[in-house]
Amino acid sequence: MQGLFITFEGPEGAGKTTIIQKLASDLEKLGVKVLLTREPGGIQISEKIRHVILDPNNTEMDARTEALLYAAARRQHLVEKVVPALNEGTIVLCDRFIDSSLAYQGYARGLGIEEVFSINQFAIQTLMPDKTLYFDIEPELGFERIGNNEGREVNRLDLENLDFHYKVREGYHILLEKFPERMITIDASKQMEQVYTQTKEIVEKLIGRLHL
Amino acid sequence: MQGLFITFEGPEGAGKTTIIQKLASDLEKLGVKVLLTREPGGIQISEKIRHVILDPNNTEMDARTEALLYAAARRQHLVEKVVPALNEGTIVLCDRFIDSSLAYQGYARGLGIEEVFSINQFAIQTLMPDKTLYFDIEPELGFERIGNNEGREVNRLDLENLDFHYKVREGYHILLEKFPERMITIDASKQMEQVYTQTKEIVEKLIGRLHL
Repeated sequence: MQGLFITFEGPEGAGKTTIIQKLASDLEKLGVKVLLTREPGGIQISEKIRHVILDPNNTEMDARTEALLYAAARRQHLVEKVVPALNEGTIVLCDRFIDSSLAYQGYARGLGIEEVFSINQFAIQTLMPDKTLYFDIEPELGFERIGNNEGREVNRLDLENLDFHYKVREGYHILLEKFPERMITIDASKQMEQVYTQTKEIVEKLIGRLHL
Repeated sequence: MQGLFITFEGPEGAGKTTIIQKLASDLEKLGVKVLLTREPGGIQISEKIRHVILDPNNTEMDARTEALLYAAARRQHLVEKVVPALNEGTIVLCDRFIDSSLAYQGYARGLGIEEVFSINQFAIQTLMPDKTLYFDIEPELGFERIGNNEGREVNRLDLENLDFHYKVREGYHILLEKFPERMITIDASKQMEQVYTQTKEIVEKLIGRLHL
């Protein structure tokens, strides 16, 4: 029995992390074997790589070095955690995966979607997600949500940041055209309850198809 | 004024490290601006990556994770150290570079030369070495030299190791066919003095051509 590999993508503030947590918990209550994860996912080697990426002393890190490190951490998380779970028939819900690298680094940072895709293909080989749920939201609205969540004011966001996140969203829209079979868009600007209901329906349908 | 990027490759025990050190010192005496380096080359980020690769606690590291980490360390060493030196007109002598990854990981470990080349192309972009001197030696003779150097007996080498190093050499021979313009073979089975003289002649000719 082979599991199902579902990834969740979207700009900041789309609410996907909250939604996946609720989804994982609800699926478990239904008796579905679920693994909720995100990179580096507690994998020792990946955590160490992440530590190199995030070290504030590393001010000189080149964007390509960073992209290769993300791909390395992704590989190890996949091999040690995702693949064994899939082999046990688990439904793996992964908060961000390859498309984040393509949208953020490939497109928004300008390294090139195809180029970042090629190093990630080396990392994941044929293990692309079975399905990817993309939570679409206007960056301004996304930041408003983050602002509300953390009690910060929206106008503290500088414009450069906002521009960058518009680019990220543009990148995701290119990916939607590139991978129409794999990626499903969910309108994340709606009320959270509606977004959750839609997400759950899609995932339950995918799992149902698997168990037919 | 643009420098010259020369890399040195070969199986273990070919004597290249000793030879490059003497070469760098002799070129400096002639007034040539030389940088002798090898990855990670004291670059903080690359050293940290190297530390992740070599950490004996990381027993579970996947070969592709490792290849991506080497490419990341290579990128950073290139950007921070090699490129600035080349831009100042320095002759950069680098002990092992991309071909080591192709021969060791791509061929001998079976990841595929083309696949490992693709992630390294992402890392180095157009910055291939101007010339690569390949020190060719039978692995058995190479190990005999290492054994003599360190006062160890040759027969302590297990056969698996030797097989692996024959594969590495095979990998290098494939690269020689793939990059006939860039790579020059030096017969490293000869006496060290002869090997050194030949190496020096080749490098002086390259530098002379540059300064015409």
